[in-house]
Amino acid sequence: MEAKEISKAVIKRLPRYYRYLGELIEENVERISSGDLSKKMHVTASQIRQDLNNFGGFGQQGYGYNVHYLYMEIGKILGLDTIHPMIIVGAGNLGQALANYSDFEKRGFRLVGIFDVNPVLEGISVRGIGIQMINTLPEFLKENPVEIAILTLPKHKAKEMANVLIKNGVKAIWNFAHIDLDAPEDVIVENVHLSESLMTLSYNLSQYRKEHVEEKKETEN
Amino acid sequence: MEAKEISKAVIKRLPRYYRYLGELIEENVERISSGDLSKKMHVTASQIRQDLNNFGGFGQQGYGYNVHYLYMEIGKILGLDTIHPMIIVGAGNLGQALANYSDFEKRGFRLVGIFDVNPVLEGISVRGIGIQMINTLPEFLKENPVEIAILTLPKHKAKEMANVLIKNGVKAIWNFAHIDLDAPEDVIVENVHLSESLMTLSYNLSQYRKEHVEEKKETEN
Repeated sequence: MEAKEISKAVIKRLPRYYRYLGELIEENVERISSGDLSKKMHVTASQIRQDLNNFGGFGQQGYGYNVHYLYMEIGKILGLDTIHPMIIVGAGNLGQALANYSDFEKRGFRLVGIFDVNPVLEGISVRGIGIQMINTLPEFLKENPVEIAILTLPKHKAKEMANVLIKNGVKAIWNFAHIDLDAPEDVIVENVHLSESLMTLSYNLSQYRKEHVEEKKETEN
Repeated sequence: MEAKEISKAVIKRLPRYYRYLGELIEENVERISSGDLSKKMHVTASQIRQDLNNFGGFGQQGYGYNVHYLYMEIGKILGLDTIHPMIIVGAGNLGQALANYSDFEKRGFRLVGIFDVNPVLEGISVRGIGIQMINTLPEFLKENPVEIAILTLPKHKAKEMANVLIKNGVKAIWNFAHIDLDAPEDVIVENVHLSESLMTLSYNLSQYRKEHVEEKKETEN
């Protein structure tokens, strides 16, 4: 299987396939046709077939997909078949919210440390993990294998801390700070810019309103 | 200005332009050339020119963009020049984290209510707003204008609650539940699927590792 050739658009759809297949497993569905999967996912059946063909033929004509097998295979492609030790840097509301997502743990994202600058938070336990002060982070990274760092610090601290993480061998940053990090090529950065998502919502809402008002005016004239 | 014709790709870049322009204002920069803006944003200068030309000519040849004017105009296009009354449905960690984002308020997203099903949370105040029980939500929506609902409930409750929101006139849902909502066409839905973002990170990490290991093997042979 040559996952390397897969396009970005397909990669973006993979977690969604994975989610829907997980739901089918919960519903005890063992096989599903691309047609039925398509209805469930609001994607065309040919899109699904094309996407899945990137990973070899998981489906059989007239027989459909084996849900569990497909789920496991997509999980492997997404790297969910291995354990990813993970830390959270920034134990504010958002950091604590993410620490409490037990679903991440189920997928192999194992939380091994939580760090903050605020001494008030020191030692407070979130899902059994005590919050540590950030100045102990370099030492911690030397002693513990950590793959992913979740960065939930305010933006003025995020860049500096990202450099500390990178310098100490963290290979992936899930960045919630409202800033673009300058990471070297061998460090994977995935951004979640929440306020940009809210602005997109606001844009769509304004546009809809504008069109709606214009339609209304035209009807009235 | 005919914002209606603007492509989705441009719309996705607008909040980013807005963010960078905001940073420039903080740094007291009054004018910037598309070349300098381009370096700052890691986008080509011609991309910036093309994008901004969609909204009319904000820049002048050899003179650059007026930062504050451009910031305000993009804000208007994003609908940030009006107040958007907003509620949070689901006052768990994530809901409370979002309630505490004072930056949203600055952009016109005014939090007017927080709701949850958990009686333990009733009356607890987040940023001066007491958490109310979810059964009071329909009544609240009748009495208070609410544009946007932030849905931070577990997925098994999200669909039902989305229907309540829509039935009671909420026109936009910012959905953090790990589920796709079936909303009518006149309701704007913007999804933040955090675990899908984490899986994309994990995919990229696995791919990088795979390539790196392969390179290493080739060097060793």
